[in-house]
Amino acid sequence: MSAARPVGDDRAAIPAARFAERIGRAQAGARARGLDALLVGVGPDLVYLAGYGAMPLERLTMLVVPAEGLVTLVVPRLEATPARGCPAVAGGHAAVATWEETEDPVAVVRGLLPRVVGRLGASDRLWALHLLRFQGALPAAVFEPASLVLRDLRIVKDADEVALLRLAARAADTVIHEVAFGRLVGRTEADVAHEIRDRLIAAGHDSAEFAIVGSGPNSASPHHAASGRVIRPGEPIVLDIGGPLGGYGSDVTRTIWVTGGDAAHGPDDEFLRLYAVLRAAQAEATHAVRPGVACERIDLVAREIISAAGHGAHFIHRTGHGIGLEGHEDPYLVAGNAEVLEPGMAFSVEPGIYLEGRYGARIEDIVVCGEDGPVVLNEAPRDLLVVTG
Amino acid sequence: MSAARPVGDDRAAIPAARFAERIGRAQAGARARGLDALLVGVGPDLVYLAGYGAMPLERLTMLVVPAEGLVTLVVPRLEATPARGCPAVAGGHAAVATWEETEDPVAVVRGLLPRVVGRLGASDRLWALHLLRFQGALPAAVFEPASLVLRDLRIVKDADEVALLRLAARAADTVIHEVAFGRLVGRTEADVAHEIRDRLIAAGHDSAEFAIVGSGPNSASPHHAASGRVIRPGEPIVLDIGGPLGGYGSDVTRTIWVTGGDAAHGPDDEFLRLYAVLRAAQAEATHAVRPGVACERIDLVAREIISAAGHGAHFIHRTGHGIGLEGHEDPYLVAGNAEVLEPGMAFSVEPGIYLEGRYGARIEDIVVCGEDGPVVLNEAPRDLLVVTG
Repeated sequence: MSAARPVGDDRAAIPAARFAERIGRAQAGARARGLDALLVGVGPDLVYLAGYGAMPLERLTMLVVPAEGLVTLVVPRLEATPARGCPAVAGGHAAVATWEETEDPVAVVRGLLPRVVGRLGASDRLWALHLLRFQGALPAAVFEPASLVLRDLRIVKDADEVALLRLAARAADTVIHEVAFGRLVGRTEADVAHEIRDRLIAAGHDSAEFAIVGSGPNSASPHHAASGRVIRPGEPIVLDIGGPLGGYGSDVTRTIWVTGGDAAHGPDDEFLRLYAVLRAAQAEATHAVRPGVACERIDLVAREIISAAGHGAHFIHRTGHGIGLEGHEDPYLVAGNAEVLEPGMAFSVEPGIYLEGRYGARIEDIVVCGEDGPVVLNEAPRDLLVVTG
Repeated sequence: MSAARPVGDDRAAIPAARFAERIGRAQAGARARGLDALLVGVGPDLVYLAGYGAMPLERLTMLVVPAEGLVTLVVPRLEATPARGCPAVAGGHAAVATWEETEDPVAVVRGLLPRVVGRLGASDRLWALHLLRFQGALPAAVFEPASLVLRDLRIVKDADEVALLRLAARAADTVIHEVAFGRLVGRTEADVAHEIRDRLIAAGHDSAEFAIVGSGPNSASPHHAASGRVIRPGEPIVLDIGGPLGGYGSDVTRTIWVTGGDAAHGPDDEFLRLYAVLRAAQAEATHAVRPGVACERIDLVAREIISAAGHGAHFIHRTGHGIGLEGHEDPYLVAGNAEVLEPGMAFSVEPGIYLEGRYGARIEDIVVCGEDGPVVLNEAPRDLLVVTG
């Protein structure tokens, strides 16, 4: 058996009344998009609309949001108690319907939909397992992503959400500081990652979702999984860490250089040049953030600086991703995304330069688009930190 | 940015050659089911076939398994290095194809499929976000669950898998012991859950996936999320804990009673009667496990004992679920499931009795169907543990 995950814990700062407003906007959005209902499975959309978190499992949990009328949270009977306690239900904005172990939950959901359904929105993270069952049970219906409606709601953070993102960012900053000034040389990446996970939790995170520790040549693999490699003097380490705090994500990257206490093992000139370029690219991309600027423009600012220094081919990922209830969400700062920044959008700015087989570096902050420009939530210093390790 | 998750770490005991065999069986299964290919996204199916773990994200990662011919792991370019290192690729049983941030990964996958595709299998945990894109790009194709093929492979555990399940079970048992004999009275459920998560990791788990701590009336809510409630003398606590270790799940439940050191706060007669019934039901259901017995029969054995004692209406969930790379997987021990047990199937046996608003109890072990009967992996004592707390 596996537990429902707590969401509305003591720190959660989203006022209960907010859920009614969000549900109302989701219903209005469904009507505007011509969707008869949204079928919202376990995941960030469900947390956003109902304040209800649960582990995604084979047992169906689903918020049924018809374009008009009563919203219902369908849960397995054994989760009735936590379901009744979630803000949307406790506040009277959604009913609960339970299904027994021997019942078909798809039929329960079907009974809550209009008799004739044309178009339905399925939440992004609904498992194929479930979606295929709904498609089988409703062969005449057309399924679309519920994010057609929900992305526009979630993409702009209100003040309470920004406050949570800031808390998360500051907590992750302290972990970067603690780890960067601790012992590193002679330890494995995996051991350092373990320490980071412990510290993320100790700093208040709900869970320690990721802890990239890429040392030496591994710093050139952006999504490196911390390995058994032992950290040596005279190499860089990319630390990219984070997880949710009060439901909202932290995600910070700093690159440090460990000398082992021997000045002869300091960063070489090529790395210093590379890092200076990266530092400028990250700063200028951040500086370019303001309402009305296209997402792809932020990416281009970083990419042009890196390309002008001859490293264009070594910057192998987009410049950033939105962040909120998900670690990655809209908006994406990537070539081809002409979407325009609005106040309240929150995202990472994280260019990187990677020389495969040799070394690499990345700097990442979480930035909110303010009325007049960027509001940077992270405060950890961005200059190359050269430490004994 | 978020990290690829390590799978093939030092403890993982699945021999590299096993992945070739699994891929071969999956392709044979696809042919037998008339599927042109399996599209396996991030999740347990991908770990099973390729030994590749990654966080499920908006960037598509997919093992493309055509019914015949070359298998390809499609990954975002920034994850090329970990992808090349996974057992299936390192062993030469799958190629890697990468896509750039500005490319459409669906088109990359499309290019790896036969020119004309009729039926495709999508892995159970593939996000609706991705499945809807594939359905849009391949309007003539019929999508089925890939589990039509993969469940039959995964449902029977080999000796290496059972060894990992046993390691996980023993590790979780030690945590139950440590927590049950530690201080409990006066602490919040959430604080105890925090301790459990720390101890699960310290005992070797990859992650502490769940830690149900249901005290007093909360013990009557099977999927209770550990709350701010303070544990008092004279009440039961349901501890249901687990997570993956070397990729394979632990999941153990024990119910204890805390007295606060005052014998007057021992369990009342009704609870003792309830627990004795539950204890018998769990033991008899376990005892009934052997090859050839239907899954629903195991459920019925437990349910009849509980019903005969007048608690039928208080046993509100199935008796068990399979376990392996997923915390819940086939086979399910539930009324209506006539599937027959085979040697190597692994599952929980976990009846419970819940008096809503008052208290409840559950006992859970992980059991493997052996050639001659049940092989119980957990060793924590099952009698009601009355402790000072």
